[in-house]
Amino acid sequence: MTQSLNIALAQCNFLVGDIPGNTTLICQQAAEAAVAGADLIVFSELALTGYPPEDLLLRPSLQRRIDTALEQIAAASSEIAIAIGYPWMDNDVLYNCAAVWYRGEELGRYAKQYLPNYQVFDEKRYFTEGIDSCVIPFRGHQLGLTVCEDVWFDGPVDDAVNAGATLILNLNASPFHMGKLEERVELMQRHATRCKVPLLYVNQVGGQDELVFDGSSFAISAEAHCVLQMPSWQSALGYVQLQDQQLSAISASQLAREDDLASLYQALVLGVRDYVNKNRFPGVVLGLSGGIDSALTLAIAADALGPERVRAVMMPFTYTSDMSKSDASLQAEAMGVRYESISIEPMYREFMAGLSDNFAGLAVDTTEENLQSRCRGVLLMALSNKTGYMVLTTGNKSEMAVGYATLYGDMAGGYGALKDVYKTKVFALADYRNSISPIIPQRVIDRPPSAELAPDQKDEDSLPPYPVLDSILERYIEHDDSADSIIAAGYEREDVMRVIRLVDVTEYKRRQAPIGVRVTRRGFGRDRRYPVTNGWKAGV
Amino acid sequence: MTQSLNIALAQCNFLVGDIPGNTTLICQQAAEAAVAGADLIVFSELALTGYPPEDLLLRPSLQRRIDTALEQIAAASSEIAIAIGYPWMDNDVLYNCAAVWYRGEELGRYAKQYLPNYQVFDEKRYFTEGIDSCVIPFRGHQLGLTVCEDVWFDGPVDDAVNAGATLILNLNASPFHMGKLEERVELMQRHATRCKVPLLYVNQVGGQDELVFDGSSFAISAEAHCVLQMPSWQSALGYVQLQDQQLSAISASQLAREDDLASLYQALVLGVRDYVNKNRFPGVVLGLSGGIDSALTLAIAADALGPERVRAVMMPFTYTSDMSKSDASLQAEAMGVRYESISIEPMYREFMAGLSDNFAGLAVDTTEENLQSRCRGVLLMALSNKTGYMVLTTGNKSEMAVGYATLYGDMAGGYGALKDVYKTKVFALADYRNSISPIIPQRVIDRPPSAELAPDQKDEDSLPPYPVLDSILERYIEHDDSADSIIAAGYEREDVMRVIRLVDVTEYKRRQAPIGVRVTRRGFGRDRRYPVTNGWKAGV
Repeated sequence: MTQSLNIALAQCNFLVGDIPGNTTLICQQAAEAAVAGADLIVFSELALTGYPPEDLLLRPSLQRRIDTALEQIAAASSEIAIAIGYPWMDNDVLYNCAAVWYRGEELGRYAKQYLPNYQVFDEKRYFTEGIDSCVIPFRGHQLGLTVCEDVWFDGPVDDAVNAGATLILNLNASPFHMGKLEERVELMQRHATRCKVPLLYVNQVGGQDELVFDGSSFAISAEAHCVLQMPSWQSALGYVQLQDQQLSAISASQLAREDDLASLYQALVLGVRDYVNKNRFPGVVLGLSGGIDSALTLAIAADALGPERVRAVMMPFTYTSDMSKSDASLQAEAMGVRYESISIEPMYREFMAGLSDNFAGLAVDTTEENLQSRCRGVLLMALSNKTGYMVLTTGNKSEMAVGYATLYGDMAGGYGALKDVYKTKVFALADYRNSISPIIPQRVIDRPPSAELAPDQKDEDSLPPYPVLDSILERYIEHDDSADSIIAAGYEREDVMRVIRLVDVTEYKRRQAPIGVRVTRRGFGRDRRYPVTNGWKAGV
Repeated sequence: MTQSLNIALAQCNFLVGDIPGNTTLICQQAAEAAVAGADLIVFSELALTGYPPEDLLLRPSLQRRIDTALEQIAAASSEIAIAIGYPWMDNDVLYNCAAVWYRGEELGRYAKQYLPNYQVFDEKRYFTEGIDSCVIPFRGHQLGLTVCEDVWFDGPVDDAVNAGATLILNLNASPFHMGKLEERVELMQRHATRCKVPLLYVNQVGGQDELVFDGSSFAISAEAHCVLQMPSWQSALGYVQLQDQQLSAISASQLAREDDLASLYQALVLGVRDYVNKNRFPGVVLGLSGGIDSALTLAIAADALGPERVRAVMMPFTYTSDMSKSDASLQAEAMGVRYESISIEPMYREFMAGLSDNFAGLAVDTTEENLQSRCRGVLLMALSNKTGYMVLTTGNKSEMAVGYATLYGDMAGGYGALKDVYKTKVFALADYRNSISPIIPQRVIDRPPSAELAPDQKDEDSLPPYPVLDSILERYIEHDDSADSIIAAGYEREDVMRVIRLVDVTEYKRRQAPIGVRVTRRGFGRDRRYPVTNGWKAGV
């Protein structure tokens, strides 16, 4: 009969690059867990640096900073063993490591064997693969270490079990996308079923630029039961007990399986909150148009930061309907955010006057529409510069995909809440948010979408209906489907070719877009690296 | 005595993604070389797709397109053997291949063994490493294939020679940075000295987004002499003859070793020319301020595209000096480009009026400076939208590094000619360009740099002198030196810490900057992947 082991799972929100601050947080969590009776606390992948540290891993002082942090970790390990991830340089080769510290000593160190280098991941840019498993004896148990991607293959878990591991620790930095939670639990259950070993999955939580990490850490028994499910979207400590290979929860599971929309909404809220707070902006300012994108963005911002840190500005022009003005002000009032209106007519008029010689005799085209949008961008940026409030952009993924957005106009800003949310999901999210409390006027949801940049303009005058558009986009962007296979799935050739062409030729706009929270399997950030100069033609 | 072999080195300018167009060009070059008596023609790395194809390599129709192209290559190989690079999928695994086609057959195919995944390179995102050398018997000679990065290690050349290679073909896509030409020749000479084998180095030429490829292909004899040096910055066919292991040039070497400034200037011209032409812009428009950055950018644009495709716009405000106005118009006249002046005073005034409630009682700060810059950006973008001319930005690397640039203002545009050129190099390049023909007024070069966004403003009021600034920046950005080591090299601690802090906190601006030609070992593009949200602090 083995000694019983109490283990804490530490789901923390780190600030990338802030090694001293992250170390302090880790030591605090370890102390709290020790007081609660834990013998071992497990942190996430690269906890000391936060994830992903990107090219900070190339800084010459990295190892010195890590060494300093490890002295503190060592000192904090007198009452509790600490399993933690950090970068480790050995003979000029950098590894993505996990190690266990106890009573001032490093009991063992493991180097990640599978380095993801796809989608948003660039780990082979920095790290070399480890080749050995690492099993650490601790109080009669055998701790097998793995890091994130390792468990998406059988080898590392198998090797650790073959080397005697009686418990698998898996340290993660696994970004959210819709549907990922179930994938992870099923994956770990398969390992338990195959290897008859309990596993702990510890993930970080929080927003980091375009990535948002949901946490959602959990524990799987050797019988493949999920004995503990920790919450998503918040920092948390969870506790389990291991006795005679039986894993059981000490803390209660805190997560009912959330529906997709609730989870998606929380992802957007956390993405905005962490970007704004970690970059120390006092608040955000956004253009409120009376349309659904800015309405939903305002709701997300107010939920993320509190209404007192959010300002909304209506910037009407000739084509702005009374309905838009009234809905915008109603919503701002319902949410308790500061609201004001500044007309762009005088600036627009002066630009057109300055350009009159150049534009004489030329037809009105999208130039004039872009000019309206840019007057709004300049106003918002002036308010931002003067107050320190960051401009939150309101564009959605459907618009960003086909380039229905104005560079330096509505695309001007620091962060995009809806950048990776298709228009059809924007509608669904607005309904979802109103189901909690009715803050978006129903008319904003029901009216046909319009940029209001020309008389009686409607989005669907120049694009397929949004359900069709979004479905084509998802197939092309997220699933890499070819034009032919999308057409074969039942879409009109003309629609498909037009949409793909718009996506292809507007890469230059996305290249200059603000970052925004990623919630799909392929966002328009590090995920999708297309050349701007590009002679590829779809469907040939 | 072996049969003599006449070999063509084909230095082509491909359009990334345009597999049919590139294939046509390849077949034309092969036909031309055959007529000239060549037995074998050697193209560059991934010639069918151009380099780098980035995520186009993930498109499902890639292999079908490659297959179609190879049918044409096969048909073009009846009179001449064709050595060429392309991506090749084998059992769902993608390789970066080089192959030799002759009389409709593939004589052999090699997979690149060393995949660069650092700096601007992401090859491990797409490709799997090859493990075997490939030596192809051809007319009594043994052709050993290597691809680019392979020759930066000894193994692939050694293995090919041990397998009997009597000539090494090295297919490259090697981007330019200052000083790289000598590195490459010396590298290949070392292989020749070690292995007693001749080597052909074939590189592509041309601009592709931020990268510019110089060409500069060459041939090294078994005695380590550079027997043929092909030109930089232009497409070319070069010819050598191999007989009894003696490699000799048939064509004349076309390149005197150019000095750094001439080479750098050509890189900038080619980067701008290819970005504009490959993206099919009719021309470019830029803001001409009377300062040196826009003066040099105008010269580059006119040299790249011809003056008839370039428009310059002066956009004066209260702080614009008469000297600036007169120098701008003098330069435009000297270069024969269309020039006009549009005052930003009326737009600026209306923005300030619209913001007067918000700004009441608040001090004047950089908000008002940014507003001037953004009025100019909006004007240029309106001209661009109406005419199709692309806005060329004029900011230099020193400014981009410390964030002395306005998002959506002077940073608005499609491409930055000087994005990777430090201010001290801007001065040197202006002198260099004037040494060919005097087109930049001397006063523009001699006057102290000023953004002219406030009364009597000078750049060096708020920054260290440019020689000091640029030296600190180069150490920090390109060499990853720590603050301590820069200080130890003799710079003031206060300057160093201030400059590093400015670089660190302005990442968000660079993330939205237009792309621009890369000419150093680390530009602000794919090279430098820093988080925006970043708790790293220099010098702690």
